[in-house]
Amino acid sequence: MMKLNDYTKSNELFRRALKVVPAGVYGHLGPASGCAVPISAFPLFAEKAQGAYFWDADGNRFVDYMCAYGPNILGYNDPDVEAAAIAQIKKGDCMTLPTELLVDFAELMVDTIAMADWAFFAKNGGDVTQFATMIAKAKTNRKKLVLVKGFYHGVAPWCQHIGYSGIIKEDVMNNFYIDWNAPEQLEQLVKEHPGEIAAFISTPYYHPTMVDNALPAPGYWEKIRKICDDNGIVLIIDDVRCGFRLNLKGSDYHYGIKADISCFCKALANGYNVSALCGTNEMRGAAEDIMYTGSYWLSAVPFAAAIAAIKKMKEIDVAKVVTEKGKKLTEGLVKVAKSHDFDLIVTGEPSMWYMRLGNDYPSTILHQEWVAECVKRGVFFTNHHNLFINAALSDEDIQFTWDVADEAYKAVRRMHPELNRN
Amino acid sequence: MMKLNDYTKSNELFRRALKVVPAGVYGHLGPASGCAVPISAFPLFAEKAQGAYFWDADGNRFVDYMCAYGPNILGYNDPDVEAAAIAQIKKGDCMTLPTELLVDFAELMVDTIAMADWAFFAKNGGDVTQFATMIAKAKTNRKKLVLVKGFYHGVAPWCQHIGYSGIIKEDVMNNFYIDWNAPEQLEQLVKEHPGEIAAFISTPYYHPTMVDNALPAPGYWEKIRKICDDNGIVLIIDDVRCGFRLNLKGSDYHYGIKADISCFCKALANGYNVSALCGTNEMRGAAEDIMYTGSYWLSAVPFAAAIAAIKKMKEIDVAKVVTEKGKKLTEGLVKVAKSHDFDLIVTGEPSMWYMRLGNDYPSTILHQEWVAECVKRGVFFTNHHNLFINAALSDEDIQFTWDVADEAYKAVRRMHPELNRN
Repeated sequence: MMKLNDYTKSNELFRRALKVVPAGVYGHLGPASGCAVPISAFPLFAEKAQGAYFWDADGNRFVDYMCAYGPNILGYNDPDVEAAAIAQIKKGDCMTLPTELLVDFAELMVDTIAMADWAFFAKNGGDVTQFATMIAKAKTNRKKLVLVKGFYHGVAPWCQHIGYSGIIKEDVMNNFYIDWNAPEQLEQLVKEHPGEIAAFISTPYYHPTMVDNALPAPGYWEKIRKICDDNGIVLIIDDVRCGFRLNLKGSDYHYGIKADISCFCKALANGYNVSALCGTNEMRGAAEDIMYTGSYWLSAVPFAAAIAAIKKMKEIDVAKVVTEKGKKLTEGLVKVAKSHDFDLIVTGEPSMWYMRLGNDYPSTILHQEWVAECVKRGVFFTNHHNLFINAALSDEDIQFTWDVADEAYKAVRRMHPELNRN
Repeated sequence: MMKLNDYTKSNELFRRALKVVPAGVYGHLGPASGCAVPISAFPLFAEKAQGAYFWDADGNRFVDYMCAYGPNILGYNDPDVEAAAIAQIKKGDCMTLPTELLVDFAELMVDTIAMADWAFFAKNGGDVTQFATMIAKAKTNRKKLVLVKGFYHGVAPWCQHIGYSGIIKEDVMNNFYIDWNAPEQLEQLVKEHPGEIAAFISTPYYHPTMVDNALPAPGYWEKIRKICDDNGIVLIIDDVRCGFRLNLKGSDYHYGIKADISCFCKALANGYNVSALCGTNEMRGAAEDIMYTGSYWLSAVPFAAAIAAIKKMKEIDVAKVVTEKGKKLTEGLVKVAKSHDFDLIVTGEPSMWYMRLGNDYPSTILHQEWVAECVKRGVFFTNHHNLFINAALSDEDIQFTWDVADEAYKAVRRMHPELNRN
């Protein structure tokens, strides 16, 4: 029997946090995000990280399949990225002027991302998705946006929902929402609102939380591209989550089209704090006309880290590496599930797959119980968000994950003697 | 005669940048910001920074009075801040969970900032000013905001202007604008729009670009506080620029009142990438209800840096230090001006003063010429933005600045033989 984790110190820290931080830990890393249910199975604070692992505040080690929700792609504390960052720290980070690294980084993005004629850098994924919509409005002199239901493009008011706290009607009144893989709905909107739609913004494939993920249907992106072209609509790809995990040239390229604007963050600098917007020459003038800046946006250290990260990602062909590791891992997880008569449903791209136990659908209780048993044994999954692969994940880590999954299925079976093993 | 700077490499870099970056260098660090006129007098790229100086791409050294537009308060590469950051980098930065540093940092903010019952961290100043307005809307169930003309609260659409590129009517239709030091205008708005105003948001004193800065009139903040209290309006202090340069307990405390929400960034971590929102207990529930998060918001390194920076700022009483250095510097600059029969008008707080030559007002040409002559000799001012003092600025640096100012006045006199020396 594997030892189960103890979270005494995590819980103590959380009690302290509740006094001075809203909700204790806010946002997607916090227990209120709903990704970690039951909370008691999950650590709440980390102590350190290395490669494919993090250690929590109680010293428990986890094979980490959240990868900081995406940023960790090469492995935590990648030596090449760290060396570049620390060398730059000694020279300067946030200064009165940008450094040559701004130019080097932009040139590297233009060389790397197929659709890019130029690049712009900020801090949050949401900084660049918002800028993308502003560029589209400036370029087209229109104000309507089309989003895909289940979207997540950040937390700015324009991409939240009526009924969400702090959001008012005016924030979202110019948004239309269509279903995934439904280009005919975009076509219909164009007919009903001719000359009004500034942009269509979407992730490269469908990866919301809580539901099975879905790849683009054959011909989907070509149809969307054509509708946009025919109607002067700016096509914005939100590549914040997928970027560099599907294809180093961009996920639009991966799926056979060319975006007008692509947004990157997360894996861009292996965790260093930077986001990027790439545009075509047609978008450049509009981007230049907009006032858009921030205190840390031209800081040098994240640029140095990003340059080192992208060079290494290209050198090892990281998209291929994480895709192959993801295939191997998930195929094994499905087999382990089957050996216990469980049906593990895996969707999305292998490098950032989504999974759920199908056995008590639409309930997610069995799934949550199995995830909890994995976490308590040192494999960090969350319940209802896609997971992530990083390049430091070894065959031994994958085997360990299968072993933990196996133990976790046994534990779930023990908890549910009422379940028939068909 | 002092040697004048050569910017050959800066200009080469800028020509490269123009191909791959919108406007070459975008935003407030770029020449298109209008802070650096004539561009030819200014370096465009930095190589490194240390203490009170940065060196440009051509190796020219500058005594830097922009301080990265605020973040540099202890001196670039402060050894204590750097040691804390680098120690944390080796453990982990952007991970799947926050570290204990989140709690330590929040506790330190609550101990330090007089009005704070809790703290929330993000990346940009604009992340927290926007969150502040969302909290106010959620708390009051109202949607109107009151801003002070000449405001700058970031680049999100809600705090830009109609007519600005990428901005639409719906972005700003719930904003009212009043003059600085005019509490009667807030009172009037409350009468005209009873029960509609969610928040009044303002900097602690008036420090827009292009115009003389202005301190609060006696009784101003007490009047504003009372109008807010009497009408259920949330009082938001945007302390992004002033924070830690006026008073370590917050600029609202400095001016004798207590804000409901205060926003910090810039000097908070001496250049490490973090912003903070502090709130009272009355605001906590509304903050907890709002979905507001980002990929890097709980990263550990900026927290470690901020903790070290705040401890050091308290240890050396940095607000007092930069205020005294600012007084000494600006009094000397006024004297040097006078010795050449120029009238240098200094406004705002000494640690982040605003200045202009009054001799050809409302033209700013003489002022721009004098600033340009200073920059060409190694003192980095910009023309129409407040300047900043950092604690590493030495008496020798101040003397050097006076000497350069003196030479620069002489140069301006040589350029304008037509000017009568009354």
